[in-house]
Amino acid sequence: MIPPATRQSVADVAAALDLAVVGRELYDRIGRLYPICRSITGNGVRETLRLLGSELDLEIREVATGTPVFDWIVPREWNIRDAYIMNGNGQRVVDFNASNLHVVSYSVPVRARLTLAELRPHLFSIPDHPDWIPYKTSYYSETWGFCLSDRQLQSLPDGEYEVCIDSSLEDGHLTLGECCLRGRDTAEVFISCHVCHPSLCNDNLSGVSVAVTLATLLRRVPLRYTYRFLFAPGTIGAITWLALNEPHVPKIKHGLVLACLGDRGSPTYKRSRRGDAAIDRTVAHVFRHASHECHSEDFAPHGYDERQYCSPGFNLPVGVLSRTPHGRFPEYHTSADDLAFVAPAALADSLRTCLKVIEVLEGNGMFLNKNPKCEPQLGRRGLYATLGGHSDERRTQEAALLWVLNLSDGTHSLLDIAERSTMPFAMVRDAATALVEHGLLEELSAPD
Amino acid sequence: MIPPATRQSVADVAAALDLAVVGRELYDRIGRLYPICRSITGNGVRETLRLLGSELDLEIREVATGTPVFDWIVPREWNIRDAYIMNGNGQRVVDFNASNLHVVSYSVPVRARLTLAELRPHLFSIPDHPDWIPYKTSYYSETWGFCLSDRQLQSLPDGEYEVCIDSSLEDGHLTLGECCLRGRDTAEVFISCHVCHPSLCNDNLSGVSVAVTLATLLRRVPLRYTYRFLFAPGTIGAITWLALNEPHVPKIKHGLVLACLGDRGSPTYKRSRRGDAAIDRTVAHVFRHASHECHSEDFAPHGYDERQYCSPGFNLPVGVLSRTPHGRFPEYHTSADDLAFVAPAALADSLRTCLKVIEVLEGNGMFLNKNPKCEPQLGRRGLYATLGGHSDERRTQEAALLWVLNLSDGTHSLLDIAERSTMPFAMVRDAATALVEHGLLEELSAPD
Amino acid sequence: MIPPATRQSVADVAAALDLAVVGRELYDRIGRLYPICRSITGNGVRETLRLLGSELDLEIREVATGTPVFDWIVPREWNIRDAYIMNGNGQRVVDFNASNLHVVSYSVPVRARLTLAELRPHLFSIPDHPDWIPYKTSYYSETWGFCLSDRQLQSLPDGEYEVCIDSSLEDGHLTLGECCLRGRDTAEVFISCHVCHPSLCNDNLSGVSVAVTLATLLRRVPLRYTYRFLFAPGTIGAITWLALNEPHVPKIKHGLVLACLGDRGSPTYKRSRRGDAAIDRTVAHVFRHASHECHSEDFAPHGYDERQYCSPGFNLPVGVLSRTPHGRFPEYHTSADDLAFVAPAALADSLRTCLKVIEVLEGNGMFLNKNPKCEPQLGRRGLYATLGGHSDERRTQEAALLWVLNLSDGTHSLLDIAERSTMPFAMVRDAATALVEHGLLEELSAPD
Repeated sequence: MIPPATRQSVADVAAALDLAVVGRELYDRIGRLYPICRSITGNGVRETLRLLGSELDLEIREVATGTPVFDWIVPREWNIRDAYIMNGNGQRVVDFNASNLHVVSYSVPVRARLTLAELRPHLFSIPDHPDWIPYKTSYYSETWGFCLSDRQLQSLPDGEYEVCIDSSLEDGHLTLGECCLRGRDTAEVFISCHVCHPSLCNDNLSGVSVAVTLATLLRRVPLRYTYRFLFAPGTIGAITWLALNEPHVPKIKHGLVLACLGDRGSPTYKRSRRGDAAIDRTVAHVFRHASHECHSEDFAPHGYDERQYCSPGFNLPVGVLSRTPHGRFPEYHTSADDLAFVAPAALADSLRTCLKVIEVLEGNGMFLNKNPKCEPQLGRRGLYATLGGHSDERRTQEAALLWVLNLSDGTHSLLDIAERSTMPFAMVRDAATALVEHGLLEELSAPD
Repeated sequence: MIPPATRQSVADVAAALDLAVVGRELYDRIGRLYPICRSITGNGVRETLRLLGSELDLEIREVATGTPVFDWIVPREWNIRDAYIMNGNGQRVVDFNASNLHVVSYSVPVRARLTLAELRPHLFSIPDHPDWIPYKTSYYSETWGFCLSDRQLQSLPDGEYEVCIDSSLEDGHLTLGECCLRGRDTAEVFISCHVCHPSLCNDNLSGVSVAVTLATLLRRVPLRYTYRFLFAPGTIGAITWLALNEPHVPKIKHGLVLACLGDRGSPTYKRSRRGDAAIDRTVAHVFRHASHECHSEDFAPHGYDERQYCSPGFNLPVGVLSRTPHGRFPEYHTSADDLAFVAPAALADSLRTCLKVIEVLEGNGMFLNKNPKCEPQLGRRGLYATLGGHSDERRTQEAALLWVLNLSDGTHSLLDIAERSTMPFAMVRDAATALVEHGLLEELSAPD
Repeated sequence: MIPPATRQSVADVAAALDLAVVGRELYDRIGRLYPICRSITGNGVRETLRLLGSELDLEIREVATGTPVFDWIVPREWNIRDAYIMNGNGQRVVDFNASNLHVVSYSVPVRARLTLAELRPHLFSIPDHPDWIPYKTSYYSETWGFCLSDRQLQSLPDGEYEVCIDSSLEDGHLTLGECCLRGRDTAEVFISCHVCHPSLCNDNLSGVSVAVTLATLLRRVPLRYTYRFLFAPGTIGAITWLALNEPHVPKIKHGLVLACLGDRGSPTYKRSRRGDAAIDRTVAHVFRHASHECHSEDFAPHGYDERQYCSPGFNLPVGVLSRTPHGRFPEYHTSADDLAFVAPAALADSLRTCLKVIEVLEGNGMFLNKNPKCEPQLGRRGLYATLGGHSDERRTQEAALLWVLNLSDGTHSLLDIAERSTMPFAMVRDAATALVEHGLLEELSAPD
């Protein structure tokens, strides 16, 4: 999809994106990851990261059970081989092999014969969606259970059943995967997505897949920021990463949690706790100039791993990029969040949005007008001529030059200028580049 | 109405309020005070305060005529025994005994025979409301006059009339009543209402009655703030109190002027001069979560005693709680502001609004999350379990816990958190209490 | 129009304005200036300033070609005597004497015989408005050209034409005109209008004419600020003035560029780069209380000489007052911007708007309430009585007194008070004057 030649900039990568091709790539990756039974620990996460490692330079870190991480402790590792409910005729009426959602995640091992009445408290369904299997977990209280469609639950005849969950919950490790792309600066852009959900597509194989393609695209270009991609189980994974990397955390200047990026809804951004961080303003800018509807909403302390990144002791400038946010689509945490629920076009649009955001982060800067008293004579320098284009375009480009000159007083970044002028960032950035080339502008230190 | 046992908190008092019972109590008190002829000085105010003193610990202060109070001087004391206009047949066509509104307040004594033409400049009516008697005063220029319905005025036959105002305007005192409920702090909440109007119900026996019941309710509970209730004549009473208590004034942290609280309009709050004082934000919060329409408006330097409390030399955080504000209902300052114009339900709702405001003032505080880095593990501590309730309620309570933890960084009060989360204050306060009990939160010094 | 007697204040001048008379005066002046062929240098500007000098004390400054002015250089002086296109029959088909718009401004001398095809690249028209002649310039690249109606252009038969531009482009001068009215303060109000356009009325003989009458009116009254009127060619004139007067620039406390003030559109104000300068707030106030529709808009770095005054090295508090802003009316820079396009009533209204703005600038001040604790007793001082008027008016005047007393705490100017009270400035100013007279208020130093 991307020719091997190194591209010049993130903007070029974004501009060259073939949405149909990249959408298919994003979708196919989800297809490969979909069957794996993931949880917050165990071989499902390992297998997932192994697959991602075939595409990315992924550093894997195993953190031992019992490791204290702030107020938490890394839990025992859970693995599962098989599970079923068998009826009196020896038929598996519920079978883990048919869907890994059938078993409550972190179920302790069980092997027993139970009447339906005895089994009933361990069975979970969704009466409102009688054909869907719910997704349930019980990480921190030891129990076991099965999930099944309400239609099946209602049709189970009385009688005795054999239940088997061939799982293990033992000391082991929690697994984290990290991919780091070094830029000119040690300041970092942090991209995080949770990898703990089993066969669910939008939540969050969509976020994982977008992150992987994003990393493969960014490694082709010279970068200003260092980019760190974290693939970790939700909550405990983010907490563990923060606990193990606390001295590193202040390097994070901008961040995004990627989740639920494949459904057919429009893009949604949840602002960081700060509300006006550069990442918040950047996404707002990209959304304002998007060709389709997008909306931003305020931070709230419930959600995904932004809960940890935006806890008051860190208060990182990390927002969440989604399409329909988690919990707001009925398919959420059910078997209906499947391969049909996510769409290549939506995934590709999500990726492009990430690139547009990064294009602004990379290109933003603070400049100083070297002729601050009155306008410099642009005509004499051929600046109008070099811009080309037909007359409306020329007028806009001239306006961009004037805006950059007028506001480059050491207090306005290019993003500030784009916002005040209501121009798209790229146009302001191009004007700044032309003015630097003509000696009319000089770059100050980059804003964080 | 309130069982004798000491209640736990203002919130409990507010929750336990029987609106029908308390509405009747408020209304009946107005009925007892209605017949008294009050003015800014004199025995009407004394008799009023004597009646309030049967329900409250009221400290009465008499301030002598001639006492300088800032730019003013305590005026002479006015008292009236009788007044009438008698026609040629010896009939009292206008009789003070029928309505104390018939005499212009502070009328000097008069006894004369006058033709209708001579009398006419001393007669006041409201042509637009021909059946209503206006309420008029002339505190600071010596004159006399009668008020009567326009219908009666128009029907007065020519001829000679005997007029009599058996009043006195002599050196005496201005009378103030004050009730103080000591709290744990010396910081004060100041509640002020004017007691200078004769037989007018909404303006301001409604404010007086609400203040009295409020004081009787608050004295049953342990209080954080000290509450000071001032019953004083309008303008000169507030000025006199401020002049005599100037060193005390900085203790006032929050305040409300109570006026026009009994009509059938919806609650109105006039902000303090500061506009963003805690009292302003508190009432706005209570209004936002009220079940019925409420509205706030900006400070203006015309109105009731907030004019003095919010004068630039004091600039106290004192707002005004009303239903329909003074001057905006046609019955204002007329005989139509009578017992039929005020309603028990409106009075009870005004009282409840006061209690809800005080509930927030009392409960507000600044807390510190003791585990600021990442979320603490709430499940391990049984915090979710302790909360009970059905699933939607549980989710809301969990959100409240997370909001309090996330924002308790030493810069957000509980009211700030309630506002940012759009949750009702009580829910945020309950979450903070639970978190303190579980050692996850500690209280900082209370905000003013 | 204005009686010879010195008036008391700008407010009096504004109030006494006879719009019909002054509108005619403004219009007639435009009529006298219309025929002159102006450009950014040359005898057209000189003749224009000579005419203005018959009405104003105008200081003329000649700045030599080649003088460096910031990033620019004063250009050679351009003058023109005659120009035409003559057809084979010896007829002048395009004749400078018919309209000075026919020649591209700054056209170099030319005398040649050309075929229509050779001539064509030097001919400009407006196809969308086939009867209008466009206005074109080429100040900084040496070329020549003719402007004509598209209808004429289309009808030119093939054949050979004689073209003649009898112009000169030689070392000379750029001419500036300045009128200064001394006030009590050396702080200045700066009024600037460009004088470089040939026979175009709205852009900008309207601005010139309004500035002249404004200066003649202001010189009749005692002024607080010093007023400086600059009549200069656009862009290079403003740059030259700034370069020559750089040490003087900090004296400018408020400023207006006057342009396009004669068309039938509603008044428009373009804010200074600061956006909240006193001039911006003043015009917003005047607009808010105007009887007709007005609107303000944000600063942008394209436009007229505010580009220079608001360049980041100066960042002066200078806005632009227009009716329909330049470039937004189809007649802009065409022969249709003629004497029929401007209207005496519009010109008079523009002048009045200027006066209302200056009335606020002159009258604004910061005062201190000498009785800040509680209200002073206004009744005792007869302040209510002195105000007169009927009851609604009296209530408003009383409110103005209370607003001024309440907010005169050393942090609010009269304009602040007018804005917060939503009262017209004059009413607030009158209240302050009355309070000063009664010893209740004292003036602090004037705000800038």
